[in-house]
Amino acid sequence: MSGPENATGMHVPEKVRIFDTTLRDGEQSPGIALSAEDKVDIALALDGYGVDCIEAGFAISSEVDRMALRRLSCMGLHADVYSLARCRREDIDAVESCGVRCIHLFIGTSDSHIRDKLGMTREQVIGAIRDSVSYSREKGMDIMFSCEDATRTDYGFLRQAYAAAVESGASVINVPDTVGITTPRRMSELIGKLSADIGAPISVHCHNDLGLAVANTLAAVESGASYVHTCMTGIGERSGNASTEEVALNLKLNYGVDTVKLELTDRVSKTVVRYTGYRPSYTKPVIGRNAFAHESGIHVHGILKNSSTYEPYPPEMVGRVRDITIGRHSGEHSVREKLDRMGVPFPEERMPALMAEIKRQSGDRTISDIELAAIAENILWKDKTEDIVRLTEFAVITGKNVTPTATVTVDIGGEQNTCAMTGNGPVDAAINAIRKAVSDDIVFEELRLESITGGSDSLCEVTVLVKDVHDDDHISAGKAVGRDIVDTTVDAFMQAINRDYARRGRR
Amino acid sequence: MSGPENATGMHVPEKVRIFDTTLRDGEQSPGIALSAEDKVDIALALDGYGVDCIEAGFAISSEVDRMALRRLSCMGLHADVYSLARCRREDIDAVESCGVRCIHLFIGTSDSHIRDKLGMTREQVIGAIRDSVSYSREKGMDIMFSCEDATRTDYGFLRQAYAAAVESGASVINVPDTVGITTPRRMSELIGKLSADIGAPISVHCHNDLGLAVANTLAAVESGASYVHTCMTGIGERSGNASTEEVALNLKLNYGVDTVKLELTDRVSKTVVRYTGYRPSYTKPVIGRNAFAHESGIHVHGILKNSSTYEPYPPEMVGRVRDITIGRHSGEHSVREKLDRMGVPFPEERMPALMAEIKRQSGDRTISDIELAAIAENILWKDKTEDIVRLTEFAVITGKNVTPTATVTVDIGGEQNTCAMTGNGPVDAAINAIRKAVSDDIVFEELRLESITGGSDSLCEVTVLVKDVHDDDHISAGKAVGRDIVDTTVDAFMQAINRDYARRGRR
Repeated sequence: MSGPENATGMHVPEKVRIFDTTLRDGEQSPGIALSAEDKVDIALALDGYGVDCIEAGFAISSEVDRMALRRLSCMGLHADVYSLARCRREDIDAVESCGVRCIHLFIGTSDSHIRDKLGMTREQVIGAIRDSVSYSREKGMDIMFSCEDATRTDYGFLRQAYAAAVESGASVINVPDTVGITTPRRMSELIGKLSADIGAPISVHCHNDLGLAVANTLAAVESGASYVHTCMTGIGERSGNASTEEVALNLKLNYGVDTVKLELTDRVSKTVVRYTGYRPSYTKPVIGRNAFAHESGIHVHGILKNSSTYEPYPPEMVGRVRDITIGRHSGEHSVREKLDRMGVPFPEERMPALMAEIKRQSGDRTISDIELAAIAENILWKDKTEDIVRLTEFAVITGKNVTPTATVTVDIGGEQNTCAMTGNGPVDAAINAIRKAVSDDIVFEELRLESITGGSDSLCEVTVLVKDVHDDDHISAGKAVGRDIVDTTVDAFMQAINRDYARRGRR
Repeated sequence: MSGPENATGMHVPEKVRIFDTTLRDGEQSPGIALSAEDKVDIALALDGYGVDCIEAGFAISSEVDRMALRRLSCMGLHADVYSLARCRREDIDAVESCGVRCIHLFIGTSDSHIRDKLGMTREQVIGAIRDSVSYSREKGMDIMFSCEDATRTDYGFLRQAYAAAVESGASVINVPDTVGITTPRRMSELIGKLSADIGAPISVHCHNDLGLAVANTLAAVESGASYVHTCMTGIGERSGNASTEEVALNLKLNYGVDTVKLELTDRVSKTVVRYTGYRPSYTKPVIGRNAFAHESGIHVHGILKNSSTYEPYPPEMVGRVRDITIGRHSGEHSVREKLDRMGVPFPEERMPALMAEIKRQSGDRTISDIELAAIAENILWKDKTEDIVRLTEFAVITGKNVTPTATVTVDIGGEQNTCAMTGNGPVDAAINAIRKAVSDDIVFEELRLESITGGSDSLCEVTVLVKDVHDDDHISAGKAVGRDIVDTTVDAFMQAINRDYARRGRR
């Protein structure tokens, strides 16, 4: 872990406020459309996380936003609840009608925005700023004011616009890098100049079009910005905004500045992912699947001796755990530690067979935890047994106005059982019939369809997880690939059942 | 678009070389395991893109890497082909055995790496550097030398280690931020000091654990680094490496430095995604789905007047096109422009109905192009017709040793057709029977299973795209949600057929 920044020339404020705009800029991401209830749930999670401000919507834009703002404004959150508004009286009235006391006013100030989007003159823009800020002030609102596209605005006019806002009663000026084109060095210079020229706290709003949102946000803080606009998981228009969790973690690790409860990061990010449907990539910092995953032999060897060797900070700090992944690059070190951690007993003398099987299987790209356990168990099982449960007959019928019905015959160690069952669909009917024929103790835990693309006869890969109703801890996995989704699921299910039987037989 | 950086105190080299390590550090990502042929294909794409160096593997670690290195070393690529190697003679021999002339030697130099991973003393580390660099030099190799974990290494020892490498014949020194913990400011200072102390070109290798890989890479370039280690799409250990495409685009836009053929970015990144299976998130800069997507009404309005209003650079620059997405935040502006672009004729007087339907449907989160077209057509179709083709009977049987067989009866404007067909699975059989009963001209173009999670009776969402064999340009989509995958697919298919009929009926 690295110590705080303390280079000369930095003006990091003691207190940096997180202005989270997941529910406004984040929600503007294509394909995200949260209901008022969704927004309230996410706002509660953010409030528990400890963000200082929550921009929960754009009151004039939709009834959903107004409903969410109305509810949030009277819930007694720790965070200040903001609504976005253009520099127009009707926008401000809409904010007031929701009972929201904090307003984020914005107007475009770059030549392109003034001319092409607004069709105004610079004088008209200044007039709109003065009018809307004063009008909001008269209503007793706390005002954050943004010059949209600030980083492409002529500096002289930018200063004039911010000065007009502060004179009219804005309490914080926000500097948006609207299209995400600035660099840390330029952002630092701009905030430094504004700090000197404008006597108000400064906020920054960075987009990630060139991958620099977090760095630009931190550069602004280094020059004295005391508010940062961020979105949880980095969502937002186009390539998104600076990620709340990355900015907060950097503030702690690299600047010694405390903001949110970092240990809730994993939980809060998962809430946002669930509602937005925007999954972080495997490689997303902090919250991505791989953030604490280790595969290659050298790395794993180092991690096992001293976790800081290949880890920037302990996973527990953000509410996560270490994950050692097994693949072609792995050695016995990591496989052994993983099996031990999962509680899979595996004899030392069979490790060469296991390593060979992992190498063979990882030609199929990935060996996850569940697969490693399955491979290990498979080896032990093959060592001592053959298929215990076999499917000797299987037929299913389904259709319109036909109750999906399956008939199966299974052979369990020589004994034949034939059963018919119905279900919600052919897969469900088949699973029900097999369970009935084999044992009701087997619980169908999860069905994963890894991929189906192309035509109606394309391949699908099915993973089925089962567990014994009397043994909550243990899950057995079966996997199959095929063209008939029903048949393939049944194959995977039979494999999982046999693995479960084999495991139990060993005890 | 912003101009090049030209602040004082910067030492940006005229030529910056892209050292792409997609095939080495990138491939160490958990779950990626490329074959030698995969590596050759990706290397050819990277070479065409114009990267200067390709680190294609770690010769001693696997036979796959050695095969790839052997093949690449004699293909006459423009890029230099590198292999990674530890500071050990057997590693260097392995590189030589592949005919590779460029070697990237590394050894850990931070206290944690020396003590906990290597179990060596500092003197032994210096000895290993001198020996391995000299040994490689004797073999006529070009040597890049890395102090692993450089950013956590005591500066005095770091300088000593790099000096030993350069004295022994290394031509470039590489500075890895192995666990991704430094900041642009600290990176800039470190590279500045090394520039002054070591008389060799400097390279930088940044990890993204705190979201700063690209910014740290650029900070190093500002201080004179003339090589940058990057991975296409940002893959690599844990949270990955600096993305090749983001670094290259920044170098062009913000520093005026030309490197790769940017217009091939989209194509090359797709090649890497295809082979690695690592999908970029929607919000990934440059290559993510949303990079040039616009949803909210205000933004779309601005974009239509002047694309630079909300775009940092034109999408064509990286081989992409603008995408205007429709959702709850959209206005008629964007819907109209999108319909026009897709060539869907839609009368002005029905726009209110369309906007209402989009608002209603976007409760289901996302309205993609194909869905917008479907909704628009659906409205026009409902305006003038009822279901033309109806499925009045449907049954299918499948199983083990049972050829999946479907029987259907369709009613086409009062005329009944009954047909039975077999298929590779129950879905395939059903589709075949319906096509036979309705018209062979209908081509089943694509089946998309949007999501299936949970138990065997979980919901699935099916999208079916069909086209008329005589009309290549037009695709009709049907969508259905249900628990029985066969039945749901049939519903979606019937919907698509009716849309296709309705569309043709209008002409």
